[in-house]
Amino acid sequence: MTCGIPYIFGALLSVEKDLLPDRLLTDNNIELVIEEVKAIRRDEKAVVLSSGQKICYDKLVLATGSVPVRPPIPGIDLENVFFAKKDPDYLQRLLVSFEKAKDVVIIGGGFVGVEFAEQFRKRGLNVTIVELLPHCLQLNLDDEYCVVAEEKLQELGIRVITKERVEEIVERDGRVVGVRLAGGERLRADMVLVAVGVKPETSLAREAQLKIGETGGVWVNEYMQTSDEDIFAAGDCAEKYSFFTKRPTNLRLASIAAREARIVAANLSQLKVKNLGTIGCFATTIGDLGLGATGLVERAAREAGFDVLVGTATTTDKHPGAMPGAKSLKVKLIFDRTSKAIIGGEVAGGTTTAELVNVISAMIEKRMTVEEVAFSHYGTHPNLTASPRTYPIAYAAEDALSKV
Amino acid sequence: MTCGIPYIFGALLSVEKDLLPDRLLTDNNIELVIEEVKAIRRDEKAVVLSSGQKICYDKLVLATGSVPVRPPIPGIDLENVFFAKKDPDYLQRLLVSFEKAKDVVIIGGGFVGVEFAEQFRKRGLNVTIVELLPHCLQLNLDDEYCVVAEEKLQELGIRVITKERVEEIVERDGRVVGVRLAGGERLRADMVLVAVGVKPETSLAREAQLKIGETGGVWVNEYMQTSDEDIFAAGDCAEKYSFFTKRPTNLRLASIAAREARIVAANLSQLKVKNLGTIGCFATTIGDLGLGATGLVERAAREAGFDVLVGTATTTDKHPGAMPGAKSLKVKLIFDRTSKAIIGGEVAGGTTTAELVNVISAMIEKRMTVEEVAFSHYGTHPNLTASPRTYPIAYAAEDALSKV
Repeated sequence: MTCGIPYIFGALLSVEKDLLPDRLLTDNNIELVIEEVKAIRRDEKAVVLSSGQKICYDKLVLATGSVPVRPPIPGIDLENVFFAKKDPDYLQRLLVSFEKAKDVVIIGGGFVGVEFAEQFRKRGLNVTIVELLPHCLQLNLDDEYCVVAEEKLQELGIRVITKERVEEIVERDGRVVGVRLAGGERLRADMVLVAVGVKPETSLAREAQLKIGETGGVWVNEYMQTSDEDIFAAGDCAEKYSFFTKRPTNLRLASIAAREARIVAANLSQLKVKNLGTIGCFATTIGDLGLGATGLVERAAREAGFDVLVGTATTTDKHPGAMPGAKSLKVKLIFDRTSKAIIGGEVAGGTTTAELVNVISAMIEKRMTVEEVAFSHYGTHPNLTASPRTYPIAYAAEDALSKV
Repeated sequence: MTCGIPYIFGALLSVEKDLLPDRLLTDNNIELVIEEVKAIRRDEKAVVLSSGQKICYDKLVLATGSVPVRPPIPGIDLENVFFAKKDPDYLQRLLVSFEKAKDVVIIGGGFVGVEFAEQFRKRGLNVTIVELLPHCLQLNLDDEYCVVAEEKLQELGIRVITKERVEEIVERDGRVVGVRLAGGERLRADMVLVAVGVKPETSLAREAQLKIGETGGVWVNEYMQTSDEDIFAAGDCAEKYSFFTKRPTNLRLASIAAREARIVAANLSQLKVKNLGTIGCFATTIGDLGLGATGLVERAAREAGFDVLVGTATTTDKHPGAMPGAKSLKVKLIFDRTSKAIIGGEVAGGTTTAELVNVISAMIEKRMTVEEVAFSHYGTHPNLTASPRTYPIAYAAEDALSKV
């Protein structure tokens, strides 16, 4: 699993533990052929394997995923420069290198970079993140939440350098010894991890002349059919469309892939389920801090042209705050002032962060208004949630209501 | 806070830590008068205090709460027989007695009884729960979830006796020494806690001849107005109506009270927000086990006459299951086969249990169909949720879909 990759290096310490076993398929009478597909022959409704063998299909599903972006930095091809590649042998080599490493530079402070940083640091490495934008996680979170993340990274002893570019990965005797930044600073490194995003793997689709979307994914309609109605695409290789604007969007997450797979599975024999666009629900952890977002954060909502109404709340994730283990919990909700519908949310908290994000996601999907969110039904418990009085989703909605 | 009361005795070890400070009110320019109201004079639009002083009102809100039910058991008035009473001085006396107690019998295995049992046991006491029904928590959960709860209670060393009635609380020299069960067994006890439910405190409302509802709460309309339009009622003292059947229902929870208080506050100056009925979201913990339910569990749905469609899923609350600290996570969803709408859910898991319940609650409120639940947007993360492939709400909905 992609999203599990960083956790091989701190929590799991094993590549194998992160793999889904083949028997999940084979035990369910699914024939599994491990071989490379060389071409799709749409005229024959067949795929050609590298062995030359052909497999015919009535319906074909493309789930070719994505590959890490390789920025054109001198030294990027050196041996100890790694990517979050979904390849067990490759990850095994990364694990071996990692076990000998002392100083790691991570290029890219998106969530994959941040998760690798946290896991590497957990094993005692010196870790530096170099991010081009003013903040880590800036593509996913509003600035004030990025700051919470950066403070936590620094508290864990991770160096965070933002608004900075890696000019060169420096080698000696063919091995990485450091990176040189555009600003002139040189960082020591015996390993570099590059996490600057992914691009859809669409070569087979392109060769088969399937239509490609604006962000480079295989074009799909609402039923997840490609421009060939007998070929579906799901996951990172497929184009995504925003739930809010219906415009192509660059969201690529395992949770989105799983949802699309469910939709494709339901549509194979008969077109039943429409994908009305991707909301984009995201969560991560840095130490004991949970961070998550769903839909449009404030910045993204403004960029998409919404007249934005915002509400915030700060409380604790147990109640009263004196309960052992209670952590600070911060929630921000974003509404469209015109329709009053909830269009986004952000959470910084503890272990309940992702499920709080999922509460907000359900509300977004059903276009709850700010009043509905404020007066909705929430269960609470001293050990498990904020207090009923300050339950943060209701409280943030009340804050927004006070600004209507 | 009511829901916090059991946690005074294991987690907080202080009554004061469970109190909301008065300054939450006084700091916000709210005048706080600590005195007993003797009568409501509706003709004068005034309340009369025990001092004889009158306070006039334009709008009056009744938030008189509830009192514990006192079952007519011989010995119920003995000194060391306690109730979950919302009274700091009383709870302080309970705390003092508790610190000297060794053997406690808890009469009633609802969630208050179960929470007291768990907290008392945490401090080393011998604890026995005596429950009249076949299972603990049976008014809130389906049998298979009650069994999970009972197994956990037993694992913690708590004795659970079900389908059994306390015939007498036995005394010697005016002090509790045991309880005698209808089946003949005698249990040793130097303290008894009675938790067999609450009844609305409505004496002032009755004296003021306000209409009383079927379950004994002050009758209210959709705006939470009593039969006198200038008097509102909220919380345990007010009658509740089911979101599903619109019939009176006996749900009394702090989270419901907080929601009703929000609605009343919004309606004081102008009738704005309707209460369309109570869904009833509930969560508790027993050791590291979280248990929760929302809406109608299967039994309640059948009793209410629904043609029920059920889906279940079992997974882990982190992913892969090899992640450190991953706990089993069980979800059951209940749908109305006719409308296909989700009407209930149950969760047994870890720290995310209550927020998972809240995800399901939002779906119930917006009457999501089984397809919508199966193909909804869920964020996932290895440390915080089940895997995207087996995210339990989607997975249980898929299970239900397979039975349509």
